[in-house]
Amino acid sequence: MKITILGNNSALPAFGRYPTAQIVDIQQELFLMDCGEAAQMRMKQYDIRSHRINHIFISHAHGDHYFGLVGFISSMSLLGREKKLHIYCNSFIKKVIELQIPWNLGFEIEYRFLEENEKGVLLSNEKYEVSCFPVYHSVPTHGFLFVEKKRKRILLPERVQHFEIPKYYYSKLTEGYDYIDKNNRVITNEEVTVKGLPFKRYAFCADTIFSPSICEDLVAIDLLYHEATYLQDQIQKAKERFHSTAMEAAEIAKMAQCKKLIIGHFSSKYRDLNPFLEQAKSIFENTELAIEGSVFEI
Amino acid sequence: MKITILGNNSALPAFGRYPTAQIVDIQQELFLMDCGEAAQMRMKQYDIRSHRINHIFISHAHGDHYFGLVGFISSMSLLGREKKLHIYCNSFIKKVIELQIPWNLGFEIEYRFLEENEKGVLLSNEKYEVSCFPVYHSVPTHGFLFVEKKRKRILLPERVQHFEIPKYYYSKLTEGYDYIDKNNRVITNEEVTVKGLPFKRYAFCADTIFSPSICEDLVAIDLLYHEATYLQDQIQKAKERFHSTAMEAAEIAKMAQCKKLIIGHFSSKYRDLNPFLEQAKSIFENTELAIEGSVFEI
Repeated sequence: MKITILGNNSALPAFGRYPTAQIVDIQQELFLMDCGEAAQMRMKQYDIRSHRINHIFISHAHGDHYFGLVGFISSMSLLGREKKLHIYCNSFIKKVIELQIPWNLGFEIEYRFLEENEKGVLLSNEKYEVSCFPVYHSVPTHGFLFVEKKRKRILLPERVQHFEIPKYYYSKLTEGYDYIDKNNRVITNEEVTVKGLPFKRYAFCADTIFSPSICEDLVAIDLLYHEATYLQDQIQKAKERFHSTAMEAAEIAKMAQCKKLIIGHFSSKYRDLNPFLEQAKSIFENTELAIEGSVFEI
Repeated sequence: MKITILGNNSALPAFGRYPTAQIVDIQQELFLMDCGEAAQMRMKQYDIRSHRINHIFISHAHGDHYFGLVGFISSMSLLGREKKLHIYCNSFIKKVIELQIPWNLGFEIEYRFLEENEKGVLLSNEKYEVSCFPVYHSVPTHGFLFVEKKRKRILLPERVQHFEIPKYYYSKLTEGYDYIDKNNRVITNEEVTVKGLPFKRYAFCADTIFSPSICEDLVAIDLLYHEATYLQDQIQKAKERFHSTAMEAAEIAKMAQCKKLIIGHFSSKYRDLNPFLEQAKSIFENTELAIEGSVFEI
């Protein structure tokens, strides 16, 4: 699982930083998390294969999290997309799209409206599961949890050599297949591989006030993205605007025992982002800034 | 008068090129021409003082000419704008804005809806005049003509020295004021200055099929922006989609006897723009590409 940061700023673009958008890549299937203005330009810039996006998740209906959506959908249509697109969002987003794109896109959009305070699985298959949970902002807002379920099995080199299994078949073995040798003997997968690593978990918490209650949705998280709009001296403003400080984001990562934290949604009043990193690290050491273009692998 | 190119591509952003948007600067008052997605990012990048924009002109209601508008207006509000904003557009644009920004912006927007085939003055004062005229695209579309009217008078150095007029007063003289000397004698402006240069004229012709009839609206144009979506081998596609080729744009500049031509709105199928320039120059030598970030002075 890989996360690419397309935009890391809050509402007002500043210092070359664009509003919120991220790509989650699970075994080359891509998911778009929020779609601030110019997200599609960033995708081009970072060589994101946007035709692989089939599911878009919009955390809430504030412009800096969705103003890029209509342009991106329009571009998908111009590029000849035919596959159905799934959008998980507030019902308002559908109105915005349908007002501006009343024509036939050439593909279907299936909306899945998120209800206020909704919690639960949105999408599940053998490879991954995506669920939503409420976070707490000035309008109904959701966090999203990605679980990569299918983990390739790990080859036992001595065993595959012992059974003289040809190299071209190794990738099949990691996917769980048995092997039939030239004497028609079945070598079961369990004889030559062991179980892969545990599931990987990524949680995306866009705009939210500091809210320890979300920790119950952040169990065994490998990587947490949590907004950090302000530095600590602006904690009062953060509260008033239902945002968090870098230290508050770090506090959540610490309480939830996440393995790693990335912070973003920086206010346009800050040119230098290093103080965000310093303040967060003072509470939770394994923190990184969500610098645009960065790729975080789990 | 200065024109800054913010976006020069057609609908699909490509090769780092963004959709249509330009700034016209007349004596430090700025006008925004079209507002494709991420126009506000380009303004930041090119140090455009966007608070000086009081008038926005949208040529037509295709997304690549307005998708950046709601984000830009939203940012103006976040930046504390109080001054009224004027938008000249199809009435559909108002619906798009009002759906997405139902709250109080802190400033008023005055819409001036452009009727199909409308031609005439939209805005006029002692410094400039802006008018619209129809161009011919798949939806109602307007070109815009900017005339910088007020031209500072030119000082006659020997005369101002003769009357011993102090240097600090020179700029007043260029604005047409008389001077009263220490003996209370009035030295009239005509005694020490001559009339300035003729009016300057910029015409913006966004999406349009090749249409010689627009030349009647392009009288004494110093600088013409004309769309050039395709190269000449795609002339049939240009016609079908109500767009122009580079050579057709040059043909218009030649027929209208414009002094200079800039071409843009390039199709995303072209990485290399040099053939556009070569083809246009074969018909109209004084052509330049509307490269993003370029500034054209008249």
